[in-house]
Amino acid sequence: MPAKTIQKLIKLLKQRNQDLTNIMDQLHPTDLAEIVENLEEDQKKELFDLLSDEEAALVIQEMEESDQVLLFKVLDKERASSILKEMSSDEAVDLLSELPQEDVQELLTRIEDTEEIEGLLKYAEDTAGGLMTTEYIALPQNIHVEEAIHRLRELAAEVETVYYIYVIDEENRLIGVLSLRELISAKEGSLLSDVMRTNVISVDVDVDQEEVARLVSRYDLLVIPVVDEKGSMRGIITVDDILDVLEEEATEDIYHFAGTSEVRGVDLVNATVFQVAAKRLPWLLVCLVGGLFSGTVMSAFEGTLEAIVVLAFFIPVIMDMGGNVGTQSSTVFVRSLATGEIESNEVWGYFFKEIRVGFLMGTVCGIAISLAANVWQHELAPWLGLVVGIAMFSTVTAAAIIGTLIPLLFWKMGADPALTAGPFVTTIKDVTGLVIYFYTAVLFMDKLT
Amino acid sequence: MPAKTIQKLIKLLKQRNQDLTNIMDQLHPTDLAEIVENLEEDQKKELFDLLSDEEAALVIQEMEESDQVLLFKVLDKERASSILKEMSSDEAVDLLSELPQEDVQELLTRIEDTEEIEGLLKYAEDTAGGLMTTEYIALPQNIHVEEAIHRLRELAAEVETVYYIYVIDEENRLIGVLSLRELISAKEGSLLSDVMRTNVISVDVDVDQEEVARLVSRYDLLVIPVVDEKGSMRGIITVDDILDVLEEEATEDIYHFAGTSEVRGVDLVNATVFQVAAKRLPWLLVCLVGGLFSGTVMSAFEGTLEAIVVLAFFIPVIMDMGGNVGTQSSTVFVRSLATGEIESNEVWGYFFKEIRVGFLMGTVCGIAISLAANVWQHELAPWLGLVVGIAMFSTVTAAAIIGTLIPLLFWKMGADPALTAGPFVTTIKDVTGLVIYFYTAVLFMDKLT
Repeated sequence: MPAKTIQKLIKLLKQRNQDLTNIMDQLHPTDLAEIVENLEEDQKKELFDLLSDEEAALVIQEMEESDQVLLFKVLDKERASSILKEMSSDEAVDLLSELPQEDVQELLTRIEDTEEIEGLLKYAEDTAGGLMTTEYIALPQNIHVEEAIHRLRELAAEVETVYYIYVIDEENRLIGVLSLRELISAKEGSLLSDVMRTNVISVDVDVDQEEVARLVSRYDLLVIPVVDEKGSMRGIITVDDILDVLEEEATEDIYHFAGTSEVRGVDLVNATVFQVAAKRLPWLLVCLVGGLFSGTVMSAFEGTLEAIVVLAFFIPVIMDMGGNVGTQSSTVFVRSLATGEIESNEVWGYFFKEIRVGFLMGTVCGIAISLAANVWQHELAPWLGLVVGIAMFSTVTAAAIIGTLIPLLFWKMGADPALTAGPFVTTIKDVTGLVIYFYTAVLFMDKLT
Repeated sequence: MPAKTIQKLIKLLKQRNQDLTNIMDQLHPTDLAEIVENLEEDQKKELFDLLSDEEAALVIQEMEESDQVLLFKVLDKERASSILKEMSSDEAVDLLSELPQEDVQELLTRIEDTEEIEGLLKYAEDTAGGLMTTEYIALPQNIHVEEAIHRLRELAAEVETVYYIYVIDEENRLIGVLSLRELISAKEGSLLSDVMRTNVISVDVDVDQEEVARLVSRYDLLVIPVVDEKGSMRGIITVDDILDVLEEEATEDIYHFAGTSEVRGVDLVNATVFQVAAKRLPWLLVCLVGGLFSGTVMSAFEGTLEAIVVLAFFIPVIMDMGGNVGTQSSTVFVRSLATGEIESNEVWGYFFKEIRVGFLMGTVCGIAISLAANVWQHELAPWLGLVVGIAMFSTVTAAAIIGTLIPLLFWKMGADPALTAGPFVTTIKDVTGLVIYFYTAVLFMDKLT
């Protein structure tokens, strides 16, 4: 959405121009949502006065949660609850869970049938129950195809998707599914139970959203039904919500690799300096302790360092390389595990290959640094080159092993490898690298002094 | 898919058991694909002999590309080309582009109408043209709703989706769209041109797949039509392919952060040690040069270091912290840019906030390390604490600035910030950290010796 369009609309809005509604009709709710986010409070209210409750609901659903909350503070409660009624149940619940408790109470008193929304509010946001909407089509198995098409036409306006029709038994248990394509090409007069597919892929209400996304992606689904522990149908999750989950989960992993987490509820651009720092400092302080520990390890070699100060010049390169290789190994392993590229039975095979990769990269880097050291500090050649080369080789190989092994062990113990691996890997590979380096130097001490 | 099921099927396959086909009928093509990937070459061939061309095509489409290639080597050319004909055009083209040139020629000679496939082969794999399939429904604007439903029923079996009907003019230009839901609830007797929506969101054939994914996700689309420079309709991209793109792009970014890239065409578990090392070594060697550069910077302070060896003990913690903060800043910035959380007009505002975040984190970390240094090396207190504290404060603040500014500049110049930021940020923040540290030490030299 170019800034010019937004400017133009604001101008029309200020002039209370007649063209405004025409232009707004042509805009996709997503684009309108973006415009609203850029308006002043009173402009927002004015613009929403031009929209029907249904249109308003569509626009609000496309806004960021933090902007939805801001808007709901501006709208009066009467209007807010009418719009809320028109929103799809998953979106309404997401919004309600961000609003202050007293506002939620007041909004719900104005809505007649709150059972559905209150039922959804009890599920954790990042589970199938938290993602699902209750607007789906479920029909009994003993009706005919024509009857099904008839009911579908009636229900079409109220549901999230008409492309899948779920078939349930008397106890609301999910027993089959039919796509609209299958329904319209089914033989006239057949019962739903004759034409439905019975091997339905569904998820339980309490399944983690990452697992839901994996299933939808694996089986190329447009919609996945959600069932409770009794097999009763509770809702559906549509693929557009899965796209958001995938993006969210990838961001979460990326942030964990970098040792931070998202500021929940507020988007990053609007979070305060304190909020951002509070998310990033804990990990930094853990690493600070780790870094100090590396320092104490070094202090054990004070004598060696005093005798050959040149040794200190290679500390940055050895630490950097250990860090880089460790990060590569952890990242590739954790991501491949997350995307399913490495399966459970392949982890150890992958680990042993990674050792060989580390060995190969260690050899190349060891030779490279050895040559560089001999040229740079030629008066100490060839011994300094040998020490630095051996240290580099061992550090790189060890970093590859540690970088894979630690997330692997965390994962085996059921912890999130992306979350836990970072600070441990950093400290362990630093200490390992430094110890190897100084021990090798001590071994060749008489050649170097 | 549990390993037990796979074992059971292999057993049935070996026994040439009658139950096998029954079980296979109940399996989702995705699950069958996974089983095939775990079979021996002759078992694969045997299992495929039990499948029709159409079923085989569905299974192959769900396999990893590397496994598709292996399978096509086992199947005879006659069978392979019959299966290829049944595959959707985007999948067929992806597979063909991985096969050796002579095999492609031989397979194509057995297919009558190769124009479509050859047309698709010319698009780059990571563009809209490379993703699209040509099996879609496009109807002229001047037919009636009933006629459209009739044609749709005829075409249903051959197309990728029946849920969107595209409306074209005489020159094949895309002028409108109708969902199946809209079509079936349209008033009888209306022309398509009366009921279609004209503001169709489409992409050009040469648009990058990342941009396609962004559009589909932004507008919650199930399908996006692809047009050429003249506005003629060329194909459609369905949301299941977008899920794969999102995963692929997130992996690419994650790998770039870690300074490596994917091994294309082969999955990671099957790539050789040399292939993996070849992808990771280039970045390591760049960093090795950067690390050596940090060493030469340090060597300029050889005298200072000789006089106060204790200074060396704090090198790891200062380097680590600079590295961590730099990584946090780059990662959060680059990812927020990729997901659209930071928009173009917000970058500088974000950058200035990041400076304040860096300042705050620098203050906390500086005080923490200063206290730690005074306790640990109490005979040099308070001066060593002051030096280390100032150095930590400046390094953390500088790392936050550099970690954001460098990807920002790369992005402004049109380069991929995820790709280019890594090695530069590492070297620059290392050098900055070390120079600040030793300069501060020189300033307080007389207090420390």
